[in-house]
Amino acid sequence: MKTLRVPEATVTRLSIYSRYLERLDRNGVTTVSSGEIAEGVGVSPAQVRKDLAYFGEFGTRGVGYNVKDLMRYTKKILGLDQEWPLILVGAGNLGYALCTYKGFNSRGFKIVGVFDNDLTKIGKKIAELEVLPMEKMPEIIQEHKARIGIIAVPPRAAQDVADFMVKNGLEAILNFAPVALNLPEGIEIRNVDLSVKLEILTFNLGFKSAQRL
Amino acid sequence: MKTLRVPEATVTRLSIYSRYLERLDRNGVTTVSSGEIAEGVGVSPAQVRKDLAYFGEFGTRGVGYNVKDLMRYTKKILGLDQEWPLILVGAGNLGYALCTYKGFNSRGFKIVGVFDNDLTKIGKKIAELEVLPMEKMPEIIQEHKARIGIIAVPPRAAQDVADFMVKNGLEAILNFAPVALNLPEGIEIRNVDLSVKLEILTFNLGFKSAQRL
Repeated sequence: MKTLRVPEATVTRLSIYSRYLERLDRNGVTTVSSGEIAEGVGVSPAQVRKDLAYFGEFGTRGVGYNVKDLMRYTKKILGLDQEWPLILVGAGNLGYALCTYKGFNSRGFKIVGVFDNDLTKIGKKIAELEVLPMEKMPEIIQEHKARIGIIAVPPRAAQDVADFMVKNGLEAILNFAPVALNLPEGIEIRNVDLSVKLEILTFNLGFKSAQRL
Repeated sequence: MKTLRVPEATVTRLSIYSRYLERLDRNGVTTVSSGEIAEGVGVSPAQVRKDLAYFGEFGTRGVGYNVKDLMRYTKKILGLDQEWPLILVGAGNLGYALCTYKGFNSRGFKIVGVFDNDLTKIGKKIAELEVLPMEKMPEIIQEHKARIGIIAVPPRAAQDVADFMVKNGLEAILNFAPVALNLPEGIEIRNVDLSVKLEILTFNLGFKSAQRL
């Protein structure tokens, strides 16, 4: 069996290229060079070519890439040629924000169930969805064939929620709680730490101040 | 003037190492090897050594790194040896979530002003902060010597908010609106796209399914 090892940084950039191509397509642009993609997203042209080379031959020398084709292809590689139903746990502020987040729908992500164990939240509506008690999760997972869960609960509750998701068949978890989770082999987990990008800013601001001295 | 060019991916990983070191320190661990850091955060030991080498000589061969020293040093490099006051615009669900986000305080980030132009939101309290009208921003920026702004408004309002922030002296912006912003040279801007990490999950799930065939 052929195994393709693609660095996570490449997948991340592919996701960013793909979004940039969508934007070009919306604006009626039909062809684009690696240099233009590079400038549009802030990496080097060589990086763009190297990243795309993981997935085959694209573009025509001297002509560049067909925007629509490359956009479709990047989305297909990312698994975005289908809809992805998402299970969300945590009907707090972050949960509300995620349910109404405009950036999900456009990429084929759809939250199909919102769960909480707080009795004051269960039964309320977020967007079009009724907040359900945790024990309803297996039913919703099955109904929508969901594979991905999102954790938007306080840190102390996150491990229990993750265990419950895995027990009920979810295969991948996006964790917004600022805490490291222990999960069985084979479960894909990624943490969204909202302060990491802030620290890139502070690094750059600190560096700028040092240069001024 | 000596110019240090550090790749953004290195700064991102430094932020992740730093957090891992904090965790080790809280758990009473005093020394750690590059291999242990690598395993703890999911990169190669060579990558850890290469990243740290940008900033000088650390650790003792065969002994490893002193956890407390390396933690302090990584925080210093990231500019986290000081408090960073943050200006937040957008008192919607995401704004609420950011105000109560546990991951900020521990890294020295403190939201000092929340602004909105929605009259139904102005005057309400989020956490300890009263939501203020936009025109109060200059005063709060000056009072706290704030340099960083966070945008948590709908996509259509994001550019105006960014322009207003820059006009009032903010130097760096973290943008949660899923839209690309145009800003003058010299302003640091980073976008948090909440679906990028989801796409790493779908990439991996798609790859797993392909392997099963």
